[in-house]
Amino acid sequence: MFLLNGVKADTLSLQDRGLQYGDGLFETIAVRNHQLEFWQRHMQRLLDGCQRLRISVPDPELLLAEARQLLDGRGDAVLKIIVTRGQDGRGYRATTDSGSKPSRILAVNDLPDYPADNQANGVVVRYCDTRLGTNPALAGIKHLNRLEQVMARSEWQDEFIFEGLMLAAHGRVTEGTMSNLFFVKAGILHTPDLSHSGVAGIVRDVVLKLARKQQIPVLIGHYNKADFTAADEVFISNSLIGVWPVWRLEQQRFSVGSVTKKLISAVDAACLKDVTHEAI
Amino acid sequence: MFLLNGVKADTLSLQDRGLQYGDGLFETIAVRNHQLEFWQRHMQRLLDGCQRLRISVPDPELLLAEARQLLDGRGDAVLKIIVTRGQDGRGYRATTDSGSKPSRILAVNDLPDYPADNQANGVVVRYCDTRLGTNPALAGIKHLNRLEQVMARSEWQDEFIFEGLMLAAHGRVTEGTMSNLFFVKAGILHTPDLSHSGVAGIVRDVVLKLARKQQIPVLIGHYNKADFTAADEVFISNSLIGVWPVWRLEQQRFSVGSVTKKLISAVDAACLKDVTHEAI
Repeated sequence: MFLLNGVKADTLSLQDRGLQYGDGLFETIAVRNHQLEFWQRHMQRLLDGCQRLRISVPDPELLLAEARQLLDGRGDAVLKIIVTRGQDGRGYRATTDSGSKPSRILAVNDLPDYPADNQANGVVVRYCDTRLGTNPALAGIKHLNRLEQVMARSEWQDEFIFEGLMLAAHGRVTEGTMSNLFFVKAGILHTPDLSHSGVAGIVRDVVLKLARKQQIPVLIGHYNKADFTAADEVFISNSLIGVWPVWRLEQQRFSVGSVTKKLISAVDAACLKDVTHEAI
Repeated sequence: MFLLNGVKADTLSLQDRGLQYGDGLFETIAVRNHQLEFWQRHMQRLLDGCQRLRISVPDPELLLAEARQLLDGRGDAVLKIIVTRGQDGRGYRATTDSGSKPSRILAVNDLPDYPADNQANGVVVRYCDTRLGTNPALAGIKHLNRLEQVMARSEWQDEFIFEGLMLAAHGRVTEGTMSNLFFVKAGILHTPDLSHSGVAGIVRDVVLKLARKQQIPVLIGHYNKADFTAADEVFISNSLIGVWPVWRLEQQRFSVGSVTKKLISAVDAACLKDVTHEAI
Protein backbone atom coordinates (compact mmCIF):
# COMPACT_ATOMS: atom_id res chain seq x y z
CA MET A 1 0.00 0.00 0.00
CA PHE A 2 1.42 3.33 -1.10
CA LEU A 3 0.54 6.99 -1.07
CA LEU A 4 2.30 9.06 -3.73
CA ASN A 5 2.03 12.79 -3.05
CA GLY A 6 -1.04 12.09 -0.97
CA VAL A 7 -2.81 9.87 -3.50
CA LYS A 8 -3.13 6.08 -3.45
CA ALA A 9 -0.82 4.70 -6.12
CA ASP A 10 1.04 1.60 -7.19
CA THR A 11 3.43 3.21 -9.64
CA LEU A 12 5.78 6.16 -10.10
CA SER A 13 6.75 8.07 -13.22
CA LEU A 14 9.63 6.46 -15.10
CA GLN A 15 11.13 9.94 -15.30
CA ASP A 16 11.43 10.26 -11.54
CA ARG A 17 15.01 10.94 -10.46
CA GLY A 18 14.58 8.46 -7.62
CA LEU A 19 14.68 5.71 -10.23
CA GLN A 20 16.99 7.39 -12.73
CA TYR A 21 19.77 8.26 -10.26
CA GLY A 22 18.76 7.10 -6.78
CA ASP A 23 18.28 10.83 -6.21
CA GLY A 24 16.42 10.81 -2.90
CA LEU A 25 16.31 9.48 0.63
CA PHE A 26 14.12 7.47 2.98
CA GLU A 27 13.10 6.71 6.56
CA THR A 28 12.00 3.38 8.02
CA ILE A 29 9.76 3.91 11.05
CA ALA A 30 8.38 1.33 13.46
CA VAL A 31 4.69 1.73 14.29
CA ARG A 32 3.75 -0.04 17.53
CA ASN A 33 0.57 0.44 19.56
CA HIS A 34 -0.46 3.21 17.16
CA GLN A 35 2.72 5.18 17.94
CA LEU A 36 5.18 6.21 15.24
CA GLU A 37 8.33 5.56 17.20
CA PHE A 38 10.87 8.39 17.33
CA TRP A 39 8.81 10.34 14.81
CA GLN A 40 10.40 13.70 15.55
CA ARG A 41 13.90 12.28 15.20
CA HIS A 42 12.99 10.63 11.90
CA MET A 43 11.58 13.92 10.65
CA GLN A 44 14.67 15.82 11.76
CA ARG A 45 16.97 13.38 9.92
CA LEU A 46 14.79 13.51 6.80
CA LEU A 47 14.88 17.30 6.81
CA ASP A 48 18.62 17.40 7.41
CA GLY A 49 19.13 14.95 4.54
CA CYS A 50 16.90 16.96 2.19
CA GLN A 51 18.86 20.08 3.02
CA ARG A 52 22.20 18.39 2.39
CA LEU A 53 20.95 17.01 -0.96
CA ARG A 54 19.19 20.31 -1.72
CA ILE A 55 15.82 18.63 -2.15
CA SER A 56 12.79 20.72 -1.14
CA VAL A 57 11.86 19.78 2.41
CA PRO A 58 8.43 18.11 2.79
CA ASP A 59 6.08 19.32 5.53
CA PRO A 60 6.31 16.96 8.55
CA GLU A 61 2.69 17.71 9.49
CA LEU A 62 1.56 16.66 6.03
CA LEU A 63 3.67 13.49 6.24
CA LEU A 64 2.15 12.64 9.61
CA ALA A 65 -1.39 13.16 8.29
CA GLU A 66 -0.64 10.98 5.28
CA ALA A 67 0.94 8.32 7.49
CA ARG A 68 -2.20 8.21 9.65
CA GLN A 69 -4.33 8.01 6.51
CA LEU A 70 -2.30 5.14 5.07
CA LEU A 71 -2.14 3.27 8.41
CA ASP A 72 -5.94 3.51 8.53
CA GLY A 73 -6.15 2.49 12.18
CA ARG A 74 -3.43 -0.18 12.00
CA GLY A 75 -1.55 -0.24 15.29
CA ASP A 76 1.57 -2.18 14.28
CA ALA A 77 3.41 -1.77 11.00
CA VAL A 78 6.53 -0.56 9.27
CA LEU A 79 6.13 2.86 7.70
CA LYS A 80 8.62 3.72 4.98
CA ILE A 81 8.83 7.28 3.69
CA ILE A 82 10.75 7.96 0.49
CA VAL A 83 11.40 11.48 -0.75
CA THR A 84 12.93 11.88 -4.22
CA ARG A 85 13.87 15.01 -6.15
CA GLY A 86 10.98 14.24 -8.52
CA GLN A 87 11.22 14.87 -12.24
CA ASP A 88 13.00 18.21 -12.40
CA GLY A 89 16.22 18.81 -14.22
CA ARG A 90 17.98 17.27 -17.19
CA GLY A 91 20.64 14.58 -16.82
CA TYR A 92 22.52 14.74 -13.54
CA ARG A 93 21.80 18.43 -13.35
CA ALA A 94 18.91 18.97 -10.99
CA THR A 95 16.63 21.86 -10.34
CA THR A 96 17.62 22.79 -6.83
CA ASP A 97 15.55 25.93 -6.46
CA SER A 98 12.44 26.11 -4.32
CA GLY A 99 10.22 25.57 -7.35
CA SER A 100 11.25 21.91 -7.63
CA LYS A 101 8.61 19.29 -6.84
CA PRO A 102 9.88 16.30 -4.86
CA SER A 103 8.00 13.00 -4.89
CA ARG A 104 6.67 11.92 -1.51
CA ILE A 105 6.10 8.18 -1.21
CA LEU A 106 4.67 6.47 1.87
CA ALA A 107 4.44 2.69 2.22
CA VAL A 108 3.03 0.53 5.00
CA ASN A 109 4.05 -3.08 5.51
CA ASP A 110 3.88 -5.69 8.28
CA LEU A 111 6.45 -5.55 11.04
CA PRO A 112 9.05 -8.30 10.49
CA ASP A 113 8.36 -11.47 12.45
CA TYR A 114 11.60 -11.60 14.45
CA PRO A 115 12.15 -14.29 17.11
CA ALA A 116 11.54 -12.79 20.58
CA ASP A 117 14.69 -14.56 21.67
CA ASN A 118 16.92 -12.24 19.63
CA GLN A 119 16.80 -9.36 22.06
CA ALA A 120 17.35 -11.51 25.13
CA ASN A 121 20.07 -13.80 23.83
CA GLY A 122 21.50 -12.01 20.85
CA VAL A 123 22.10 -12.79 17.21
CA VAL A 124 24.84 -14.14 14.97
CA VAL A 125 26.63 -11.71 12.66
CA ARG A 126 29.41 -12.02 10.11
CA TYR A 127 31.82 -9.77 8.22
CA CYS A 128 31.02 -8.91 4.61
CA ASP A 129 33.57 -8.64 1.83
CA THR A 130 31.67 -5.82 0.10
CA ARG A 131 33.14 -2.54 1.28
CA LEU A 132 31.42 0.74 2.08
CA GLY A 133 32.43 3.63 -0.11
CA THR A 134 33.88 6.76 1.47
CA ASN A 135 32.09 10.01 0.80
CA PRO A 136 31.79 12.78 3.38
CA ALA A 137 29.22 14.60 1.17
CA LEU A 138 26.79 11.68 1.49
CA ALA A 139 27.89 10.05 4.76
CA GLY A 140 25.19 9.77 7.40
CA ILE A 141 22.31 10.34 4.96
CA LYS A 142 19.83 7.49 4.51
CA HIS A 143 19.82 8.02 0.75
CA LEU A 144 18.56 5.78 -2.03
CA ASN A 145 22.00 4.70 -3.28
CA ARG A 146 22.05 1.35 -1.52
CA LEU A 147 23.77 -0.99 -3.95
CA GLU A 148 26.60 -1.58 -1.50
CA GLN A 149 24.12 -2.88 1.05
CA VAL A 150 22.36 -5.03 -1.56
CA MET A 151 25.68 -6.55 -2.63
CA ALA A 152 26.79 -7.11 0.96
CA ARG A 153 23.47 -8.74 1.87
CA SER A 154 23.80 -11.08 -1.10
CA GLU A 155 26.97 -12.59 0.37
CA TRP A 156 25.15 -15.04 2.66
CA GLN A 157 21.98 -17.15 2.53
CA ASP A 158 22.25 -18.77 5.98
CA GLU A 159 19.06 -17.80 7.84
CA PHE A 160 20.90 -18.23 11.14
CA ILE A 161 23.06 -15.18 10.39
CA PHE A 162 21.07 -12.04 11.06
CA GLU A 163 23.43 -9.31 9.94
CA GLY A 164 26.63 -8.62 8.01
CA LEU A 165 29.15 -6.04 9.18
CA MET A 166 30.69 -3.79 6.54
CA LEU A 167 34.16 -2.30 6.50
CA ALA A 168 35.06 1.01 4.92
CA ALA A 169 38.49 2.26 3.82
CA HIS A 170 41.48 1.31 6.00
CA GLY A 171 39.61 -1.75 7.31
CA ARG A 172 37.36 0.36 9.48
CA VAL A 173 34.40 -1.68 10.73
CA THR A 174 31.62 0.85 10.20
CA GLU A 175 28.08 -0.57 10.31
CA GLY A 176 25.84 -3.50 9.49
CA THR A 177 24.00 -3.68 6.16
CA MET A 178 20.86 -2.43 7.97
CA SER A 179 22.02 -1.57 11.48
CA ASN A 180 24.51 0.47 13.46
CA LEU A 181 27.17 -1.11 15.55
CA PHE A 182 28.50 -0.74 19.10
CA PHE A 183 30.97 -2.47 21.36
CA VAL A 184 31.80 -2.18 25.02
CA LYS A 185 35.36 -2.47 26.30
CA ALA A 186 36.26 -1.97 29.96
CA GLY A 187 32.95 -0.23 30.60
CA ILE A 188 33.36 2.26 27.75
CA LEU A 189 30.78 2.29 24.93
CA HIS A 190 32.33 2.59 21.46
CA THR A 191 30.64 3.18 18.14
CA PRO A 192 32.17 3.83 14.70
CA ASP A 193 32.50 7.38 13.43
CA LEU A 194 30.15 7.94 10.47
CA SER A 195 31.53 11.14 9.03
CA HIS A 196 32.96 9.38 5.97
CA SER A 197 30.68 6.35 5.46
CA GLY A 198 27.49 4.86 6.80
CA VAL A 199 23.99 5.84 7.85
CA ALA A 200 23.52 7.77 11.09
CA GLY A 201 20.75 5.67 12.61
CA ILE A 202 17.96 7.08 14.76
CA VAL A 203 18.34 4.42 17.46
CA ARG A 204 22.12 4.92 17.36
CA ASP A 205 21.55 8.55 18.37
CA VAL A 206 19.09 7.49 21.06
CA VAL A 207 21.58 4.95 22.44
CA LEU A 208 24.32 7.57 22.60
CA LYS A 209 22.06 10.06 24.34
CA LEU A 210 20.78 7.52 26.87
CA ALA A 211 24.29 6.20 27.56
CA ARG A 212 25.51 9.71 28.41
CA LYS A 213 22.45 10.22 30.61
CA GLN A 214 23.41 7.06 32.51
CA GLN A 215 27.04 8.18 32.90
CA ILE A 216 28.30 5.44 30.60
CA PRO A 217 31.45 6.84 28.94
CA VAL A 218 31.12 7.01 25.13
CA LEU A 219 33.80 7.04 22.43
CA ILE A 220 33.12 7.60 18.74
CA GLY A 221 36.09 6.60 16.62
CA HIS A 222 37.65 4.39 13.99
CA TYR A 223 37.82 0.70 14.88
CA ASN A 224 39.07 -2.37 13.07
CA LYS A 225 38.30 -6.05 13.42
CA ALA A 226 40.84 -6.43 16.23
CA ASP A 227 38.94 -3.90 18.34
CA PHE A 228 35.79 -5.98 17.98
CA THR A 229 37.69 -9.18 18.71
CA ALA A 230 38.91 -7.63 21.96
CA ALA A 231 35.46 -6.31 22.96
CA ASP A 232 33.55 -7.38 26.08
CA GLU A 233 30.12 -6.80 24.55
CA VAL A 234 28.88 -6.15 21.00
CA PHE A 235 25.43 -4.99 19.95
CA ILE A 236 23.56 -3.63 16.94
CA SER A 237 20.68 -1.20 16.60
CA ASN A 238 18.07 -0.04 14.13
CA SER A 239 14.54 1.36 14.16
CA LEU A 240 12.83 -2.01 13.84
CA ILE A 241 14.90 -4.08 16.28
CA GLY A 242 15.82 -1.41 18.80
CA VAL A 243 18.97 -2.84 20.40
CA TRP A 244 20.00 -6.49 20.00
CA PRO A 245 23.10 -8.09 21.49
CA VAL A 246 25.53 -9.98 19.25
CA TRP A 247 26.34 -13.36 20.75
CA ARG A 248 28.51 -14.55 17.89
CA LEU A 249 30.64 -12.58 15.45
CA GLU A 250 32.19 -15.04 12.99
CA GLN A 251 33.67 -17.68 15.32
CA GLN A 252 33.84 -15.53 18.41
CA ARG A 253 31.25 -15.67 21.18
CA PHE A 254 30.14 -12.81 23.41
CA SER A 255 27.90 -12.82 26.43
CA VAL A 256 25.07 -10.35 26.82
CA GLY A 257 26.77 -7.85 29.11
CA SER A 258 25.50 -5.38 31.67
CA VAL A 259 25.95 -2.25 29.56
CA THR A 260 24.03 -3.82 26.68
CA LYS A 261 21.22 -4.87 29.03
CA LYS A 262 21.03 -1.41 30.55
CA LEU A 263 20.77 0.21 27.12
CA ILE A 264 18.17 -2.28 25.86
CA SER A 265 15.93 -1.33 28.79
CA ALA A 266 16.55 2.37 28.34
CA VAL A 267 15.81 2.31 24.59
CA ASP A 268 12.70 0.18 25.11
CA ALA A 269 11.47 2.66 27.71
CA ALA A 270 12.11 5.54 25.34
CA CYS A 271 10.18 3.67 22.61
CA LEU A 272 7.16 3.38 24.89
CA LYS A 273 6.70 7.12 25.00
CA ASP A 274 4.41 8.61 22.43
CA VAL A 275 7.28 10.01 20.48
CA THR A 276 4.94 11.06 17.73
CA HIS A 277 4.31 14.07 19.88
CA GLU A 278 7.14 14.16 22.35
CA ALA A 279 10.89 14.16 21.81
CA ILE A 280 12.92 12.15 24.31
CA MET B 1 8.57 7.64 -24.49
CA PHE B 2 9.23 4.46 -22.62
CA LEU B 3 8.93 0.72 -23.09
CA LEU B 4 8.72 -1.26 -19.83
CA ASN B 5 9.31 -4.97 -20.41
CA GLY B 6 8.24 -4.50 -24.01
CA VAL B 7 5.07 -2.55 -23.29
CA LYS B 8 4.51 1.21 -23.65
CA ALA B 9 4.41 2.69 -20.18
CA ASP B 10 4.85 5.92 -18.27
CA THR B 11 5.25 4.46 -14.80
CA LEU B 12 7.00 1.72 -12.83
CA SER B 13 5.91 -0.20 -9.74
CA LEU B 14 6.74 1.62 -6.52
CA GLN B 15 8.06 -1.72 -5.28
CA ASP B 16 10.75 -1.88 -7.94
CA ARG B 17 14.23 -2.20 -6.46
CA GLY B 18 15.50 0.33 -8.99
CA LEU B 19 13.64 2.98 -7.02
CA GLN B 20 13.96 1.43 -3.57
CA TYR B 21 17.74 0.91 -3.64
CA GLY B 22 19.10 2.08 -6.99
CA ASP B 23 19.44 -1.65 -7.61
CA GLY B 24 20.15 -1.68 -11.33
CA LEU B 25 22.23 -0.25 -14.16
CA PHE B 26 21.90 1.63 -17.42
CA GLU B 27 23.34 2.40 -20.84
CA THR B 28 23.13 5.66 -22.78
CA ILE B 29 23.42 5.03 -26.51
CA ALA B 30 23.70 7.56 -29.34
CA VAL B 31 21.47 6.85 -32.33
CA ARG B 32 22.66 8.63 -35.46
CA ASN B 33 21.61 7.96 -39.04
CA HIS B 34 19.55 5.01 -37.79
CA GLN B 35 22.63 3.37 -36.27
CA LEU B 36 22.86 2.47 -32.60
CA GLU B 37 26.46 3.46 -32.08
CA PHE B 38 28.72 0.89 -30.45
CA TRP B 39 25.71 -1.31 -29.78
CA GLN B 40 27.71 -4.50 -29.22
CA ARG B 41 30.00 -2.78 -26.74
CA HIS B 42 27.04 -1.33 -24.86
CA MET B 43 25.46 -4.78 -24.70
CA GLN B 44 28.71 -6.33 -23.50
CA ARG B 45 29.05 -3.77 -20.71
CA LEU B 46 25.40 -4.19 -19.71
CA LEU B 47 25.82 -7.97 -19.54
CA ASP B 48 29.06 -7.70 -17.57
CA GLY B 49 27.38 -5.32 -15.13
CA CYS B 50 24.37 -7.60 -14.70
CA GLN B 51 26.67 -10.51 -13.96
CA ARG B 52 28.64 -8.51 -11.39
CA LEU B 53 25.42 -7.39 -9.69
CA ARG B 54 23.87 -10.86 -10.14
CA ILE B 55 20.89 -9.50 -12.03
CA SER B 56 19.43 -11.82 -14.67
CA VAL B 57 20.91 -10.85 -18.02
CA PRO B 58 18.41 -9.49 -20.58
CA ASP B 59 18.49 -10.83 -24.14
CA PRO B 60 20.38 -8.36 -26.38
CA GLU B 61 18.32 -9.40 -29.41
CA LEU B 62 15.13 -8.57 -27.53
CA LEU B 63 16.58 -5.22 -26.42
CA LEU B 64 17.51 -4.41 -30.01
CA ALA B 65 14.03 -5.29 -31.29
CA GLU B 66 12.47 -3.15 -28.55
CA ALA B 67 14.85 -0.28 -29.31
CA ARG B 68 13.84 -0.38 -32.99
CA GLN B 69 10.17 -0.47 -31.99
CA LEU B 70 10.53 2.51 -29.66
CA LEU B 71 12.63 4.49 -32.17
CA ASP B 72 9.84 3.92 -34.71
CA GLY B 73 11.95 5.03 -37.66
CA ARG B 74 13.64 7.93 -35.87
CA GLY B 75 17.17 8.28 -37.18
CA ASP B 76 18.71 10.45 -34.46
CA ALA B 77 18.05 10.10 -30.75
CA VAL B 78 19.41 9.13 -27.38
CA LEU B 79 18.42 5.63 -26.33
CA LYS B 80 18.64 4.93 -22.61
CA ILE B 81 18.30 1.36 -21.39
CA ILE B 82 17.77 0.74 -17.67
CA VAL B 83 17.79 -2.75 -16.18
CA THR B 84 16.75 -3.10 -12.53
CA ARG B 85 16.51 -6.19 -10.34
CA GLY B 86 12.71 -5.79 -10.42
CA GLN B 87 10.56 -6.51 -7.41
CA ASP B 88 12.13 -9.69 -6.01
CA GLY B 89 13.48 -10.03 -2.53
CA ARG B 90 12.77 -8.44 0.82
CA GLY B 91 14.78 -5.53 2.16
CA TYR B 92 18.31 -5.39 0.85
CA ARG B 93 18.24 -9.13 0.37
CA ALA B 94 17.59 -9.83 -3.28
CA THR B 95 16.53 -12.90 -5.15
CA THR B 96 19.64 -13.59 -7.18
CA ASP B 97 18.59 -16.91 -8.67
CA SER B 98 17.64 -17.26 -12.31
CA GLY B 99 13.95 -17.06 -11.41
CA SER B 100 14.21 -13.35 -10.66
CA LYS B 101 12.46 -10.98 -13.08
CA PRO B 102 14.42 -7.81 -13.84
CA SER B 103 12.67 -4.71 -15.15
CA ARG B 104 13.74 -3.63 -18.63
CA ILE B 105 13.15 0.05 -19.35
CA LEU B 106 13.88 1.72 -22.68
CA ALA B 107 13.59 5.47 -23.22
CA VAL B 108 14.10 7.57 -26.34
CA ASN B 109 14.88 11.28 -26.20
CA ASP B 110 16.29 13.97 -28.49
CA LEU B 111 20.04 14.15 -28.96
CA PRO B 112 21.41 17.09 -26.95
CA ASP B 113 21.84 20.25 -29.01
CA TYR B 114 25.59 20.75 -28.48
CA PRO B 115 27.46 23.57 -30.24
CA ALA B 116 29.37 22.15 -33.24
CA ASP B 117 32.30 24.23 -32.11
CA ASN B 118 32.90 22.06 -29.02
CA GLN B 119 34.63 19.26 -30.86
CA ALA B 120 36.82 21.57 -32.94
CA ASN B 121 37.86 24.04 -30.28
CA GLY B 122 37.18 22.30 -27.01
CA VAL B 123 35.22 23.00 -23.86
CA VAL B 124 35.75 24.52 -20.44
CA VAL B 125 35.86 22.18 -17.44
CA ARG B 126 36.30 22.67 -13.71
CA TYR B 127 37.12 20.58 -10.65
CA CYS B 128 34.26 19.52 -8.36
CA ASP B 129 34.43 19.41 -4.58
CA THR B 130 32.14 16.36 -4.38
CA ARG B 131 34.32 13.28 -4.23
CA LEU B 132 33.82 9.88 -5.84
CA GLY B 133 33.45 7.00 -3.42
CA THR B 134 35.85 4.08 -3.59
CA ASN B 135 34.36 0.66 -4.12
CA PRO B 136 36.04 -2.04 -6.20
CA ALA B 137 32.84 -4.15 -6.10
CA LEU B 138 30.93 -1.47 -8.00
CA ALA B 139 33.72 0.37 -9.86
CA GLY B 140 33.35 0.48 -13.62
CA ILE B 141 29.64 -0.43 -13.58
CA LYS B 142 27.21 2.18 -14.93
CA HIS B 143 24.82 1.53 -12.04
CA LEU B 144 21.87 3.55 -10.80
CA ASN B 145 23.58 4.90 -7.65
CA ARG B 146 24.44 8.28 -9.09
CA LEU B 147 23.96 10.70 -6.20
CA GLU B 148 27.65 11.63 -6.27
CA GLN B 149 27.28 12.78 -9.87
CA VAL B 150 24.06 14.66 -9.07
CA MET B 151 25.75 16.45 -6.17
CA ALA B 152 28.86 17.22 -8.23
CA ARG B 153 26.77 18.56 -11.12
CA SER B 154 24.89 20.83 -8.71
CA GLU B 155 28.11 22.67 -7.86
CA TRP B 156 27.98 25.01 -10.85
CA GLN B 157 25.31 26.83 -12.87
CA ASP B 158 27.58 28.60 -15.37
CA GLU B 159 26.44 27.41 -18.82
CA PHE B 160 29.91 28.12 -20.17
CA ILE B 161 31.36 25.25 -18.11
CA PHE B 162 30.57 21.95 -19.79
CA GLU B 163 31.88 19.41 -17.33
CA GLY B 164 33.14 18.95 -13.78
CA LEU B 165 36.04 16.66 -12.97
CA MET B 166 35.72 14.46 -9.88
CA LEU B 167 38.47 13.31 -7.56
CA ALA B 168 38.45 10.04 -5.67
CA ALA B 169 40.46 9.06 -2.58
CA HIS B 170 44.06 10.36 -2.36
CA GLY B 171 43.20 13.28 -4.65
CA ARG B 172 43.06 11.04 -7.70
CA VAL B 173 41.43 12.85 -10.61
CA THR B 174 39.20 10.07 -11.92
CA GLU B 175 36.47 11.15 -14.34
CA GLY B 176 33.96 13.82 -15.24
CA THR B 177 30.41 13.73 -13.88
CA MET B 178 29.30 12.26 -17.23
CA SER B 179 32.51 11.63 -19.15
CA ASN B 180 35.86 9.89 -19.00
CA LEU B 181 39.08 11.77 -18.92
CA PHE B 182 42.40 11.65 -20.77
CA PHE B 183 45.57 13.67 -20.98
CA VAL B 184 48.59 13.58 -23.23
CA LYS B 185 52.10 14.24 -21.94
CA ALA B 186 55.19 13.94 -24.14
CA GLY B 187 53.25 11.92 -26.70
CA ILE B 188 51.94 9.40 -24.16
CA LEU B 189 48.18 9.03 -23.68
CA HIS B 190 47.14 8.77 -20.02
CA THR B 191 43.77 7.91 -18.53
CA PRO B 192 42.77 7.29 -14.91
CA ASP B 193 42.53 3.74 -13.61
CA LEU B 194 38.90 2.87 -12.84
CA SER B 195 39.31 -0.25 -10.74
CA HIS B 196 38.28 1.55 -7.53
CA SER B 197 35.95 4.35 -8.71
CA GLY B 198 34.25 5.56 -11.85
CA VAL B 199 32.36 4.32 -14.86
CA ALA B 200 34.26 2.46 -17.58
CA GLY B 201 32.93 4.35 -20.61
CA ILE B 202 32.34 2.74 -23.99
CA VAL B 203 34.11 5.53 -25.89
CA ARG B 204 36.96 5.38 -23.37
CA ASP B 205 37.50 1.75 -24.39
CA VAL B 206 37.28 2.65 -28.07
CA VAL B 207 39.82 5.47 -27.60
CA LEU B 208 42.24 3.11 -25.86
CA LYS B 209 41.86 0.49 -28.57
CA LEU B 210 42.29 2.98 -31.41
CA ALA B 211 45.28 4.63 -29.71
CA ARG B 212 47.07 1.29 -29.48
CA LYS B 213 46.21 0.59 -33.12
CA GLN B 214 47.88 3.86 -34.04
CA GLN B 215 50.98 3.10 -31.95
CA ILE B 216 50.22 5.87 -29.48
CA PRO B 217 51.67 4.70 -26.15
CA VAL B 218 49.00 4.38 -23.46
CA LEU B 219 49.30 4.50 -19.67
CA ILE B 220 46.44 3.76 -17.26
CA GLY B 221 47.25 4.93 -13.77
CA HIS B 222 46.55 7.20 -10.82
CA TYR B 223 46.91 10.91 -11.52
CA ASN B 224 46.42 14.03 -9.44
CA LYS B 225 45.73 17.64 -10.32
CA ALA B 226 49.43 18.34 -10.84
CA ASP B 227 49.57 15.72 -13.61
CA PHE B 228 46.75 17.50 -15.42
CA THR B 229 48.38 20.87 -14.86
CA ALA B 230 51.53 19.56 -16.52
CA ALA B 231 49.68 17.95 -19.45
CA ASP B 232 50.14 18.96 -23.10
CA GLU B 233 46.58 18.01 -24.12
CA VAL B 234 43.43 17.14 -22.18
CA PHE B 235 40.23 15.64 -23.56
CA ILE B 236 37.00 14.02 -22.40
CA SER B 237 34.81 11.31 -23.92
CA ASN B 238 31.35 9.84 -23.67
CA SER B 239 28.83 8.12 -25.91
CA LEU B 240 27.00 11.30 -26.88
CA ILE B 241 29.95 13.64 -27.48
CA GLY B 242 32.52 11.14 -28.71
CA VAL B 243 35.82 12.92 -27.98
CA TRP B 244 36.01 16.62 -27.13
CA PRO B 245 39.17 18.56 -26.34
CA VAL B 246 39.41 20.58 -23.14
CA TRP B 247 40.66 24.07 -23.88
CA ARG B 248 40.37 25.35 -20.34
CA LEU B 249 40.61 23.52 -17.02
CA GLU B 250 40.00 26.03 -14.21
CA GLN B 251 42.39 28.88 -15.12
CA GLN B 252 44.70 26.83 -17.32
CA ARG B 253 44.48 26.83 -21.11
CA PHE B 254 45.31 23.96 -23.45
CA SER B 255 45.55 23.88 -27.21
CA VAL B 256 43.88 21.15 -29.22
CA GLY B 257 46.87 18.91 -29.80
CA SER B 258 47.79 16.42 -32.50
CA VAL B 259 47.05 13.28 -30.47
CA THR B 260 43.59 14.57 -29.56
CA LYS B 261 42.87 15.44 -33.20
CA LYS B 262 44.03 12.01 -34.37
CA LEU B 263 41.77 10.28 -31.86
CA ILE B 264 38.76 12.47 -32.65
CA SER B 265 39.03 11.42 -36.30
CA ALA B 266 39.54 7.77 -35.43
CA VAL B 267 36.57 7.63 -33.05
CA ASP B 268 34.36 9.50 -35.51
CA ALA B 269 35.32 7.01 -38.21
CA ALA B 270 34.54 4.11 -35.88
CA CYS B 271 31.15 5.71 -35.10
CA LEU B 272 30.30 5.82 -38.79
CA LYS B 273 30.39 2.05 -39.08
CA ASP B 274 27.14 0.25 -38.52
CA VAL B 275 28.18 -0.93 -35.12
CA THR B 276 24.70 -2.25 -34.50
CA HIS B 277 25.91 -5.25 -36.45
CA GLU B 278 29.66 -4.97 -36.53
CA ALA B 279 32.17 -4.66 -33.71
CA ILE B 280 35.14 -2.44 -34.38
